[in-house]
Formats: sequence, C-alpha cells, structure tokens
Amino acid sequence: MAILLKEINSIIDGKITGDESIGISNLAKIEEAQKGDLTFLYLQPYEKYFQVTKASAILVKEGFNKTRKDITYIEVKEPNKAFAKLVRHFFKPEFPLEGIDKTAFIHPEAELGNNISIGRNVVISKGCKLGDNIKIFHNTVLSDNVVIGDNALIFQNVSIREKCQIGKNVIIHPGTVIGSDGFGYNTDENGNYQKIPQIGIVIIEDDVELGANVTIDRAAIGATIIRKGVKIDNLVQIAHNVEVGENTVISAQTGISGSAKIGKNCILTGQVGMIGHITIADKVIILAQSGISKSISKPGIYFGSPAKELSVAKKIEAHIRNLPGYAEKINLLEKELAALKDEINNLKKQ
Amino acid sequence: MAILLKEINSIIDGKITGDESIGISNLAKIEEAQKGDLTFLYLQPYEKYFQVTKASAILVKEGFNKTRKDITYIEVKEPNKAFAKLVRHFFKPEFPLEGIDKTAFIHPEAELGNNISIGRNVVISKGCKLGDNIKIFHNTVLSDNVVIGDNALIFQNVSIREKCQIGKNVIIHPGTVIGSDGFGYNTDENGNYQKIPQIGIVIIEDDVELGANVTIDRAAIGATIIRKGVKIDNLVQIAHNVEVGENTVISAQTGISGSAKIGKNCILTGQVGMIGHITIADKVIILAQSGISKSISKPGIYFGSPAKELSVAKKIEAHIRNLPGYAEKINLLEKELAALKDEINNLKKQ
Amino acid sequence: MAILLKEINSIIDGKITGDESIGISNLAKIEEAQKGDLTFLYLQPYEKYFQVTKASAILVKEGFNKTRKDITYIEVKEPNKAFAKLVRHFFKPEFPLEGIDKTAFIHPEAELGNNISIGRNVVISKGCKLGDNIKIFHNTVLSDNVVIGDNALIFQNVSIREKCQIGKNVIIHPGTVIGSDGFGYNTDENGNYQKIPQIGIVIIEDDVELGANVTIDRAAIGATIIRKGVKIDNLVQIAHNVEVGENTVISAQTGISGSAKIGKNCILTGQVGMIGHITIADKVIILAQSGISKSISKPGIYFGSPAKELSVAKKIEAHIRNLPGYAEKINLLEKELAALKDEINNLKKQ
Repeated sequence: MAILLKEINSIIDGKITGDESIGISNLAKIEEAQKGDLTFLYLQPYEKYFQVTKASAILVKEGFNKTRKDITYIEVKEPNKAFAKLVRHFFKPEFPLEGIDKTAFIHPEAELGNNISIGRNVVISKGCKLGDNIKIFHNTVLSDNVVIGDNALIFQNVSIREKCQIGKNVIIHPGTVIGSDGFGYNTDENGNYQKIPQIGIVIIEDDVELGANVTIDRAAIGATIIRKGVKIDNLVQIAHNVEVGENTVISAQTGISGSAKIGKNCILTGQVGMIGHITIADKVIILAQSGISKSISKPGIYFGSPAKELSVAKKIEAHIRNLPGYAEKINLLEKELAALKDEINNLKKQ
Repeated sequence: MAILLKEINSIIDGKITGDESIGISNLAKIEEAQKGDLTFLYLQPYEKYFQVTKASAILVKEGFNKTRKDITYIEVKEPNKAFAKLVRHFFKPEFPLEGIDKTAFIHPEAELGNNISIGRNVVISKGCKLGDNIKIFHNTVLSDNVVIGDNALIFQNVSIREKCQIGKNVIIHPGTVIGSDGFGYNTDENGNYQKIPQIGIVIIEDDVELGANVTIDRAAIGATIIRKGVKIDNLVQIAHNVEVGENTVISAQTGISGSAKIGKNCILTGQVGMIGHITIADKVIILAQSGISKSISKPGIYFGSPAKELSVAKKIEAHIRNLPGYAEKINLLEKELAALKDEINNLKKQ
Repeated sequence: MAILLKEINSIIDGKITGDESIGISNLAKIEEAQKGDLTFLYLQPYEKYFQVTKASAILVKEGFNKTRKDITYIEVKEPNKAFAKLVRHFFKPEFPLEGIDKTAFIHPEAELGNNISIGRNVVISKGCKLGDNIKIFHNTVLSDNVVIGDNALIFQNVSIREKCQIGKNVIIHPGTVIGSDGFGYNTDENGNYQKIPQIGIVIIEDDVELGANVTIDRAAIGATIIRKGVKIDNLVQIAHNVEVGENTVISAQTGISGSAKIGKNCILTGQVGMIGHITIADKVIILAQSGISKSISKPGIYFGSPAKELSVAKKIEAHIRNLPGYAEKINLLEKELAALKDEINNLKKQ
C-alpha cells in the first residue's frame, strides 16, 4: 500500500525535486532499497551507493548535487533525522501483550495500577508498586518492594531486586539485572574477604532506556542513581553508588566503577572504563576504549588509556607512529656528533 | 571399561610406538591424566608435564623425541585435532530433553515441526515457526514470529525477540539475547534523546554458535546478519545492522558497533572493539583488546588501539619500551653538543 | 529508633570525642547524612564534605584534625572497615523466601537437604544434589547432576549447566551462567569450524561470590576451577579450563582466556584481559584495562596493554607524554649540529 511522496513530505517539510506524485511503499537503507522505496543519504561511507540505489526517492542534504535524473529528491537539513521521523510516524512497534497471564505471580500485597499487562511466569513480589500502562514480559522477576512508574516497558528475563525504583516511560531490554549487590568487601589479616552488606538501592529516573544484559548494582548505602533521560547500551556495568547525570549516553560494554559521578549530557562510547570516586563534568565526550583514571572538570572530547584531551591524544599518537623515525634520527645524530668530535680533535692538533 | 589403544588409533590413524595392546579407560589433560588414560601434547607450555604425566599413552607430533620408555606414543600430524576427534567420537554430549513440557506455552498460531523438545516455562509466541529436531530448554522466551531452523539447540533463559530468524544447526547458550533494540536516538535542541524505532530484525544463518550472555541487536531497518558458520563467544556485543561474514570467529567480550561489515574467515580475539560503518576484509585477524577505528582492506594480523598491522605495532611497542633510553640519549646529545660548542668557541678564539 | 553512640562504639572500640550520649538513627554516606546519622570519612575525595555534612557523628582516622565542634568523633584505625562492621551488625539483609514453591520443578531423582527454599518456576533437574539451608530464587535453572553446597544463595534467572559443582556459602547474582560450553573448535581445510565437545565441568569452591551476568565456561576436559573465597564481579568472562586461586578478586568486565592459571590473593581490576595458557603468580595486582600476554612469575603491580610492572609502565607513560618535547629537541639538535658543522668547516678553511 503506497503513500504519495508529497504526503510523506508533508511530515518532514523538505524540498522535492522530481516527481512528487510517485507512490512510496517502504523505507529502506540505501544499499538495500528497491523500486518504490524511499531511502536517505547522510554519512560519507554510503555515498558510493547513490549512483546504484534502486530507491525511487531519496532524502538528501540541502544543496546535494542531484546528478541522477531517475530518482526523486527530498532536500532537508538533516536527512538522518528526517528519516527517523518518518520511521517513528509509520512504524511505531507495538509489542502486543494483554492482561495478566494466569501463570504470573502477583503477591497479594503488591499494588497494581490500571492497564497493566504481565506475561507468563512473571514474579511480582511482596510490596511491589506498579503504575499505569505497564508491560512486563515473560519470566521477568521483581523482588520485594520494587516500584515501577507509568508506561514502563520491561522485556523478558529481566531481574529487578528488592526496593529498586524505576521511573516513568522506562524501557528495559532482556536479561538486564538491576539491584545486584555492589562489589564490596573488607580483607582480614589472612587475606580472606568479608562481604560488606549492600543495603542501598538503585533509582532509575524517568525516560531511561537500558539495553540487554546490562548490570546496575545497588548502592552499599544510599542509592545508585541513573538520572532522567539516560540511555544505556548492552552489557554496560554500573557499580554501586554511581550517579549518571541527565541525558547522558553510555555505549556498549562500558564499565563505571563505584561512586563515580558522571555529569549531564555526556557521551561515553563503547568499552570505556572509569575508576571509582571520580567526577566527570557535564558535556564530556569520551571516545571508545578510553580509560578514565582522574576526574574531568571541563567539557570536551577525551581519548586514550589513560585518557587525555583528544587534541593531545592525537598529537601523541602521531608522535608514537613517528617513533621509528625518531630513533633513526637519534642514531644519526650520535654518529654525526662523534664525527664532529673527531674533526674538532684534528683541528686542535693542528 | 577400557578400549584397546590400537582400536582407538584406528580412528585417528597415527603411528604407535610402545605397547599397542594396552587398554585406555579415559581421555585426560596431560597434567591431570592417570594410569589408563590417553592424553596429548601440543602446546609448548605443556611440555614440562611430559616427564611427569601418569598417562599410559600420549598423542604427540610426528618426530617427537620419545625419551620416556614407560608410555605408549601415538605420533600424528596435529595431536590437538586428533584428540578432539577422539573426544567427538567417544563423548558426544546428549542434553536429554523429551517432549513438550506441560508448563511450556505454545501459542495456537505457532507452527512446530517434528521431534521438538521444549522445556519448562518456555514461551513460544504467536506466529513462531519451528523446524524439526529442535531442543529449547527451560525458561527461554521466543517473542512473536520468531523462526527457528532444524536441529537448533537453545539452552535455558535465552531471549529471542520478534521476527528474528535462526538457521539450522544453531546452538545458543544460556542468557543470550537476540533482537533487542539497536541503540539509536536523535537529539533535540535541548539535548533530550528521542528513540528511533528499531524496526529491523536479526538473521542468524546455519551452523552458527552463540555463547552465553551474548547480545545481538535488531537492525534499525533491514537486518543484522550473522552468516553461516560464525562462532561467537560469551558476552559479545553485536550492534544494529552489523554483518558478520561466513566462518568468522569472535572471542569473548568483543564489541562491534552499528553497521560494521566484517568479512569471511576473520578472527576477532577477546575484548576487541570496532567502530561503526566500517568494512573489514576477509581473513583479517585482530588481536586482543585492539580498537579498530578504520576499515581494513587487506588480510593480515592487526593489533593495538588504534590498531596497526602487527609488524608495525610490534616495532612501535619495542620503541615505546626503549623510550627511557632514547630520552637519555637525547640528554647526552644535548650535553655533548654544548661541550662541542664550547670547544669550537675556544678554537675560534685561538 | 535511635541507638546510643557509646553503645555503637562498643562494637568497634574507637575513641570518642564529643557527646557520647547522642542517639544514632541511621548510617549514611558523608554527603547524604542527616541529623541523627553516623557517617565516616576515609578517602581523600570525600574530605571536602567534612565541613558541610549534617551527620551527628563521624568515624575518622586516628589523629584526625577535629576542627568542627558540633559533631561527635569516633577515631579508629580504619574508618571504612569500622563502618562496614556496623553495617554488618545492624543491617544484614534477609532475602525472604520460604519453602518450595508449587510451580518449581524438582526432579524425583534430585536429592534435597534440609531447610531448602525454592522460588517460582525454578527447575532442579535429574540427579541434582542440594545441601542444607539453600535459597534458590525464581526462574533459575539447574541442569542435570548439578551439586550445590550448604548455605548457597542463588538469585533469579541463573543458569547452571549439567554436572557443575557449587560449594558452600556461595552467592550467585542474577543472570549468571555457569557451565556453558567452552569456545573450542578445529578448522578443516575449507575454513569451516568443527565443534570440540566440551565434556568437562565447572567447580566453584566454598565462599565464592559471583556477580550478575557473569559467564564461566565448562572445561573442554577436566574442570574450570574457581577456588575458595574468590570474588567475581559483574560481566566477567572465565573461559574453559581456567583456574582462579584462593581469595583472588576479579572486577567487572575482566576476561580470562582458556587454561590460564591465576594464583592466590591476586586482584584483577576492571576490564582486564588475559590470554590463554599462562600462569600468574600469587599476590599479583593488575590494574584496569591491562592486557596480560605473558605469564607473571613474581608478585607486584602491573599495568598496560601489553602489561608491564607499574613502575616501568608509569615511567614509559611519562615519556610518552613528553614525546612532543623530545621531537622538538631532536629537531633542535639537528639544526644545532648542522650549524656546528658549518662553523667547523669555516674553521678548517682558515
């Protein structure tokens, strides 16, 4: 069922060049698009597909060089965002789940709001409080006294341990664990470790999304806090008493050690590591695989293990690549210096 | 119950030196083998156990120096492969599971092939299609419209989300998540992130094995694809729209960012990270903890963060270790140069 | 309900300065403590909170400079350990779970000790043997012939595969997988991988704690062994045939490759990687993100990828940061040398 291109354009308000009366039947990536599809071009590595894409229409940046005549162009400021807007408009996924399955366990002392859907074998323990319009998929377990805000979407096989608090509009992907004990021990004189009870909780504020198989430990005392709007990718580790500031984004396999405090609107890309008890300012961007061993007090881009400001890291990396050349120069200098010494000695003898 | 050594040898076709009529009751590692066991020697670090192993027989490389007289040797080209062949022959694990447990949920609109075994509390949702000879262990959840090929072996607590397609002979270990949403957002002018619906799927082709607690995200649009014969180890992260080529091996805790395209017969060792939207050629080997920030267009071995060809990386690492020496040499050069300047000045005064 | 400060002090035996008759109603972190709370000061980054904390009493190091007059001090040798002791004394968490839930499956050929609590949908398969005083939370699955020692505490959604042996007093957090197949294959001449059956087991000795979403692979043959008192953090990967020595601590996201043997009382901090078939001595400390590519034969602190002794690594890191300066010096030396050559040539002409 095709939709007219000009109708689609009314959602994103671009400038059409070409046939605006064609019908669009699907949205597709540039390298996979077929006749009848609308695609987009944004990143440089995909420019090579422009000449060969079978798409009937393409979202491009304003001022794009429209060399092909057999395709309809929609020029917009940011083709990726315009495309995402269309995806949101036409394809919002539904995740059907209705009612409370008879195999789910709801403790008599749990409180449930309106319009709650609970899948098979879910466990809602004593003292849990659920808001309205919540979906919890199969085999997920909420321990005692967990609180879940309105509109939460919790997928299968998730574990949320006792007393943890989840805000509104939170999405949690499968296999994620919230509220496991923090990693805290004291050693005795024989090198044996004695567990420090982890009596704090985890607070996940509104609009947070947590990926799959994420782990967020409960605080030793007090709370591990994930602030409003934070987005956390798969396999990320958040240790006890960490605080992640509003709208910070943490990519896959990053690990944050205990009591670190990360600012607002930061971006931590993949496999970043951060030691404990440090503070990261707002608007800090940390590039992949970096290791953060000290507090960062000013916004900027950081890279390396140990991490440095990106401009410094890049300069040093260039020097590292030049090391073989430097070593050669040092050798040469030594030889030339020795030769000069000889010459000077000869001169002195004259 | 012992088996004659010469009977065992008929499977691997080696050259026996010593008593070929002894009975072998077990296969064991060289450092743990007891009287009556057959062991093998392949890697250098284990050579120290040769003189002390209690094994009655040992698989060794052709031409091995047979200094002990109280042990029977079987010489083969590759002792590790011969040993593995014997393990496969004598010890194929069975994973017993019979029938469809009454606590499992099979949606009336799901289609099941023949000889299907489904464990307790498993959820097979609406529209799922399962081939023949499949085992799905306890508490695993298949969301709507998942397809599973013949002979799949899926362990407990696995999550496969809607529309994902799993090929034939696939093995999936516990806790693995397939089809979680890709990590895709747009920011608005206030720094708030708006989720881009992830409307694609995951395709796992035939003969793939996925370790425990792996995460493979569904595509933003189109498919995340794991090609035939790929082997993925525990805790690996595969982001949306990634494609992993045939027979590529990915070791534990490696992370592949969105839309990266990895060739065939590559080996990614542990904790490797790869940024998005890049292409890796066939037969590329990437050593542990490397960070890949650019496309790699030719086969070879790469190492480092950022990664370089191994020969380059090794040379640079050697220079880095020499840095204290270089610094000293520079100091010395400066001093000697100053001394020469003085001498020249003296000469000029003469 | 407040407890007298002097009564609290009787547990930790410190030296009180100030009003010892005040009532303490809670233990809290220094930056969050309120009137009536007891807090502690140990790490340098928290000293800034001393002047502003609202706590009524504070645990400090012996000889602390007691500048505030409106707070009661308890001086002890190690305030963090004293505080942990109080947490253990007053707040031991209970994890209530009673009896064997009717939705749990206990195979008729499983053996259960006394005082066992088993949650909803738990699967205890054929041949399992459980000791006394064990708690297993909801949706956890034990495959055939698993052994669990006395006093084990196993949280929800845990997977323990066939024949694995868990000792006494072991704690396992949600989502952890024990006994998944080791990552072992042989390649054939076409580059196809053939699975080597993993017929070994995992042995977890007494007093071990495993975090959330940890993966511990079964041995190819023999056993993967986690010795007495080991503590393993979230998302750690332990490959087949690894042995971790007594009282060793492994922080989050660390990965240990196959057949590595780690000594006693080691500390591996976060995101460390270790290649296979190497041996690490007792009392080795490896700092975050390090990559261990060789055996380590003597105690000490190591850092870097590849890892070096910390003193060496620090020296090299300092030299790396100086590289831009060294490059400049080399340039300058080259120029000065050229100038000297000219001068000498001039002298020679005279």
